[in-house]
Amino acid sequence: MQSPIEVGVLGATGMVGQHFIRFLARHARFKIAWVGASDRSAGKKYRDATAWRLDGAMPASVADLAVEECKPGNAPKLVFSAMDASVATEIERAFAQAGHTVVSNSRNHRMEADVPLLVPEVNAEHLASLAIQKANRGWSGQIVTNPNCSTIVLTLALAALKPFGIRNTVVTTMQAISGAGYPGVPSMDITANVVPYIGNEEEKMESETQKILGEFAQGAFQPHPMGVSAHCNRVPVVDGHTEAVSVDLSAAPSEADLIAAIDGFRGLPQLRNLPSAPPRPLIYMTDRDRPQPRRDVERENGMAVFVGRLRKCPVLGYKFLCLGHNTIRGAAGAAVLNAELMESEGLLG
Amino acid sequence: MQSPIEVGVLGATGMVGQHFIRFLARHARFKIAWVGASDRSAGKKYRDATAWRLDGAMPASVADLAVEECKPGNAPKLVFSAMDASVATEIERAFAQAGHTVVSNSRNHRMEADVPLLVPEVNAEHLASLAIQKANRGWSGQIVTNPNCSTIVLTLALAALKPFGIRNTVVTTMQAISGAGYPGVPSMDITANVVPYIGNEEEKMESETQKILGEFAQGAFQPHPMGVSAHCNRVPVVDGHTEAVSVDLSAAPSEADLIAAIDGFRGLPQLRNLPSAPPRPLIYMTDRDRPQPRRDVERENGMAVFVGRLRKCPVLGYKFLCLGHNTIRGAAGAAVLNAELMESEGLLG
Amino acid sequence: MQSPIEVGVLGATGMVGQHFIRFLARHARFKIAWVGASDRSAGKKYRDATAWRLDGAMPASVADLAVEECKPGNAPKLVFSAMDASVATEIERAFAQAGHTVVSNSRNHRMEADVPLLVPEVNAEHLASLAIQKANRGWSGQIVTNPNCSTIVLTLALAALKPFGIRNTVVTTMQAISGAGYPGVPSMDITANVVPYIGNEEEKMESETQKILGEFAQGAFQPHPMGVSAHCNRVPVVDGHTEAVSVDLSAAPSEADLIAAIDGFRGLPQLRNLPSAPPRPLIYMTDRDRPQPRRDVERENGMAVFVGRLRKCPVLGYKFLCLGHNTIRGAAGAAVLNAELMESEGLLG
Amino acid sequence: MQSPIEVGVLGATGMVGQHFIRFLARHARFKIAWVGASDRSAGKKYRDATAWRLDGAMPASVADLAVEECKPGNAPKLVFSAMDASVATEIERAFAQAGHTVVSNSRNHRMEADVPLLVPEVNAEHLASLAIQKANRGWSGQIVTNPNCSTIVLTLALAALKPFGIRNTVVTTMQAISGAGYPGVPSMDITANVVPYIGNEEEKMESETQKILGEFAQGAFQPHPMGVSAHCNRVPVVDGHTEAVSVDLSAAPSEADLIAAIDGFRGLPQLRNLPSAPPRPLIYMTDRDRPQPRRDVERENGMAVFVGRLRKCPVLGYKFLCLGHNTIRGAAGAAVLNAELMESEGLLG
Repeated sequence: MQSPIEVGVLGATGMVGQHFIRFLARHARFKIAWVGASDRSAGKKYRDATAWRLDGAMPASVADLAVEECKPGNAPKLVFSAMDASVATEIERAFAQAGHTVVSNSRNHRMEADVPLLVPEVNAEHLASLAIQKANRGWSGQIVTNPNCSTIVLTLALAALKPFGIRNTVVTTMQAISGAGYPGVPSMDITANVVPYIGNEEEKMESETQKILGEFAQGAFQPHPMGVSAHCNRVPVVDGHTEAVSVDLSAAPSEADLIAAIDGFRGLPQLRNLPSAPPRPLIYMTDRDRPQPRRDVERENGMAVFVGRLRKCPVLGYKFLCLGHNTIRGAAGAAVLNAELMESEGLLG
Repeated sequence: MQSPIEVGVLGATGMVGQHFIRFLARHARFKIAWVGASDRSAGKKYRDATAWRLDGAMPASVADLAVEECKPGNAPKLVFSAMDASVATEIERAFAQAGHTVVSNSRNHRMEADVPLLVPEVNAEHLASLAIQKANRGWSGQIVTNPNCSTIVLTLALAALKPFGIRNTVVTTMQAISGAGYPGVPSMDITANVVPYIGNEEEKMESETQKILGEFAQGAFQPHPMGVSAHCNRVPVVDGHTEAVSVDLSAAPSEADLIAAIDGFRGLPQLRNLPSAPPRPLIYMTDRDRPQPRRDVERENGMAVFVGRLRKCPVLGYKFLCLGHNTIRGAAGAAVLNAELMESEGLLG
Repeated sequence: MQSPIEVGVLGATGMVGQHFIRFLARHARFKIAWVGASDRSAGKKYRDATAWRLDGAMPASVADLAVEECKPGNAPKLVFSAMDASVATEIERAFAQAGHTVVSNSRNHRMEADVPLLVPEVNAEHLASLAIQKANRGWSGQIVTNPNCSTIVLTLALAALKPFGIRNTVVTTMQAISGAGYPGVPSMDITANVVPYIGNEEEKMESETQKILGEFAQGAFQPHPMGVSAHCNRVPVVDGHTEAVSVDLSAAPSEADLIAAIDGFRGLPQLRNLPSAPPRPLIYMTDRDRPQPRRDVERENGMAVFVGRLRKCPVLGYKFLCLGHNTIRGAAGAAVLNAELMESEGLLG
Repeated sequence: MQSPIEVGVLGATGMVGQHFIRFLARHARFKIAWVGASDRSAGKKYRDATAWRLDGAMPASVADLAVEECKPGNAPKLVFSAMDASVATEIERAFAQAGHTVVSNSRNHRMEADVPLLVPEVNAEHLASLAIQKANRGWSGQIVTNPNCSTIVLTLALAALKPFGIRNTVVTTMQAISGAGYPGVPSMDITANVVPYIGNEEEKMESETQKILGEFAQGAFQPHPMGVSAHCNRVPVVDGHTEAVSVDLSAAPSEADLIAAIDGFRGLPQLRNLPSAPPRPLIYMTDRDRPQPRRDVERENGMAVFVGRLRKCPVLGYKFLCLGHNTIRGAAGAAVLNAELMESEGLLG
């Protein structure tokens, strides 16, 4: 049995930070040794600095940690970033500069030309960009990011179809309220309602998807040459983003071919049996009215994407549904799996 | 001031029938004189035969009407049909045979080759098929239908774009629970959930849209030569179907052209100022997060379709949102407007 | 026909202020001539200063009014106060001092010894305290308040039972999210949940109820000598506070006596046919599962309280349900009815 | 390690039956060996006879069992009954007659004079009535029942206060939709609404509570001499009944006394460490807005009752909130714990 790897969490007291704390507290390999937050919280115990919003109790192992400022000094080599976008750029760079590996859920560095936007089952080879990142920036550390929650769900599903040649996709999301944090979406907006707009979400899905599905070649990311059109909506669901997808493929697979590709899809996390990897990243459900967020999203520890209703699309060729847990597979769990992949690649230094 | 036109309602005690009763009770021109229902209800007063499910009280003017069997004998010339699909075919035909004009919300006759599937602002000229219907069937009466609720919303929005040449559309619906009647959707299915399947709804949207937007020429309906792909979902909203639409146009209009076309769209109901016609059938909303079902669907007496978020679609050209009231513009109000158009055309005999 | 009375609204841009604007825009007698808000908004047009959150459009008659600071100078004689509690004390007093009649929905002055806490059907005679208020304070104007939204619903129902001698009441509320304003209750808190706590609400219901049902005698308010115990809960309902009430009466009425008292209850607003008065302030519903907030709260323009399920309580004697519209009868409509009563009493000066 | 005890489930294909199957499939000691359902299902595999409605997948260990008719023949000695009330009386009696121990969740026998209405932490001594039951009825088997879901939550909380002398209680429930089974509550009734009526629920809470808290003495149940008044409401919550309780005690404990009594409350299931027993049957939560159903009900495997907000009641003395999982602690889990207690008492024969 290996000794645990100490990790820190930047922005540990906020909602995303709490998701990291909850996810990591049960982790077999990573041990939370350090929590960073704003000046206002620094010096307090985590239990006193944090208004715990998640179901279940605050993990006891973290409650008594002293919160520190988000400065590199005492933090472990590996830090997860749950920083708010308004401050993430500077702080994440300071940590990378000081030799830390920053595994970030923030959006700030996702689209940078030398930063991997990683989904371990989909584009593990993008980690090759880290050498360039370090050289470019003169960092002893490094920054790796995971995509926006709705993008992860989509790209995992599309990755299985990539061998058939993806030319275009139109996706309409029905996203859970937990994606907006806390206090997040006012109940007066979403009770018995649909809010058909989420700031910058469509742009993120469209650009991130191309980067993730693309190649890293000759020292640069080559966006996958495909059209992506997203319609993003908020619906009164607690956890789980549901996405209705039409896809235009260059090959002419049968429905059975596609379902087999979905069911058979595996990536490095599965081959290496990484601690947080779901045995199967994609689960195809055969009931005609599944997946459904409230009923299915907690399965597989929230780390799989559920696919269903694959059928012909009269316009683009095929259409289907997919569903993933936005705060687990779409955020904290995604970042932790990124770190696990990096460790298995020997990239944690 | 004209004398009122007496009307009947077939299937008056069910949920759709109740929507007809409520809508017609406030009507300036039509007067409910006859209510038909199953044998079980026949002979009772409407108030005793009906478990009233709608908000507000049962209209007093109807409460004391005696319910009759759904047979042609005593019914007025004009009857609205809210019959369940399991029995509508036979009963509606019997009434048409006996000389009645049947204005039906049921799906049974919608796709027949000699039955108009009418949206008065969109395809009033389809009424020309009635002459052929009567000749074909040897009826002194006639049957006219309105589309499925989600189709009406879509086709009204698309009608404004038709001058730009519609080649393809991909639509994802987020449909209200009231569309499923009563008891309808179990709360265990839809509370804090999305149910991504509605039986036969996608097929109906795909085929009905082509018929409605098509021509009636040389004695036959010519479906509009376009691809339609529908993803239909139920969401926890009480009233109002929201639809995210991508559309491929053969012309190259600007966004301003399209918004002007939407805002300027009018049909015969507006020109003739029909009693139930909204002054503008399409209302373009400029706020970036509108329309929303709970906040907007009751405006314009539920008879307009609300459009918003028109923007470029990287795959099909343009995308937008539309919203309509499924039990008013999508059902009872649609049928009543059909009858008003027929009266203005002199087709009520 | 009388000429309209010009009115102002203090705090017109906030949520409560918007409810006043919407309610007053349709008023037969009062005309909104002045809107006051914070310094930040002063100088802008109402349409520009206000993020309109209510269903339906902002009333056109108000949209172009210039927002002024909340200072007495230009305001009409009669002002409605929708001020936040943090600033209401000082501002309302400044207006009263300057000769204005302040009809306030804020909680700040409700429990003052010389300020009427008015429910026009229940304690119109409390207006006699105004003479003392003016004398005490040296004001040429005056302040009148309406109760907390959940209190109004309870006290209207209890007022009908007062002739039977109310000794004690235990009430459990299930309150709508609109009662908390905007952004108000986070959706993460209330979606598919109950939040069994509303800050200070129980204390307000307990003390306000005693004042309202008490007498104004010998120059002082005499709280009604009764026990009031409130359990206040937030539930995922948009509008309408539902209250389950047990009551201990000193007389021994029959159920029929109580229902007759509820149905027959009338107050000065009904006798004088005040513009916003519902014909019957209490509506007893006989269906065993009514009233229900979503289905019933909009009836009677939101100004009546709906009562149902009156039955024996094995502990306190009788129990029943009541329901009222928290933002209409419980807030803006309550204040406007207070002003109407004052006008009919000749108290607007 | 003991060998497993084989058990059967009567009514295994319905919603309550599915809850039993799911709960028992993870049980350390009981093994599902037999499933009974209606004639219509008999002969099929469980997977084919059952429309599985619960979250997560049908337990694989049960899926291939052949469903049998609900007749005593092949069933194990111990059977759990999830029978519908319309048929439970006859079938449960037939099994008891044939020597089976029937541990029933159905309401039919709860109030019989020789049938224990058991909450293991509260009235284990009521099992003494079984000897009389067998003698009275001439049965070699026996019937034991658990209370209605809302009653269990209340009586567990009240049991801790019983040492202080309970004279009266007034309780208002806010009950989850899962309590009504499937399809259960129509979404048109409960979406964004409260339904303030649940058939026979108030009567059940009032009578069952007195039996459970009473003594079994001199061969008969002596109802606890207390007044119980219940107001039962349905709210849009998936799982978990929340109850607002006022209680009149003959002693004069302090708040601290009561909280200590709640925190310290234990019963035989805890002393004997029964497999399904929660370590503490009552968990007192100190946050002012807890417990909440969506956030708390799944803790402790759904087997504890959560209490909070204990405070003075101006009318009855004290008031507090309690919350329990209606389909686990209130149904399947309750029955299983009953069987575990009986086994530990040597009453399974």
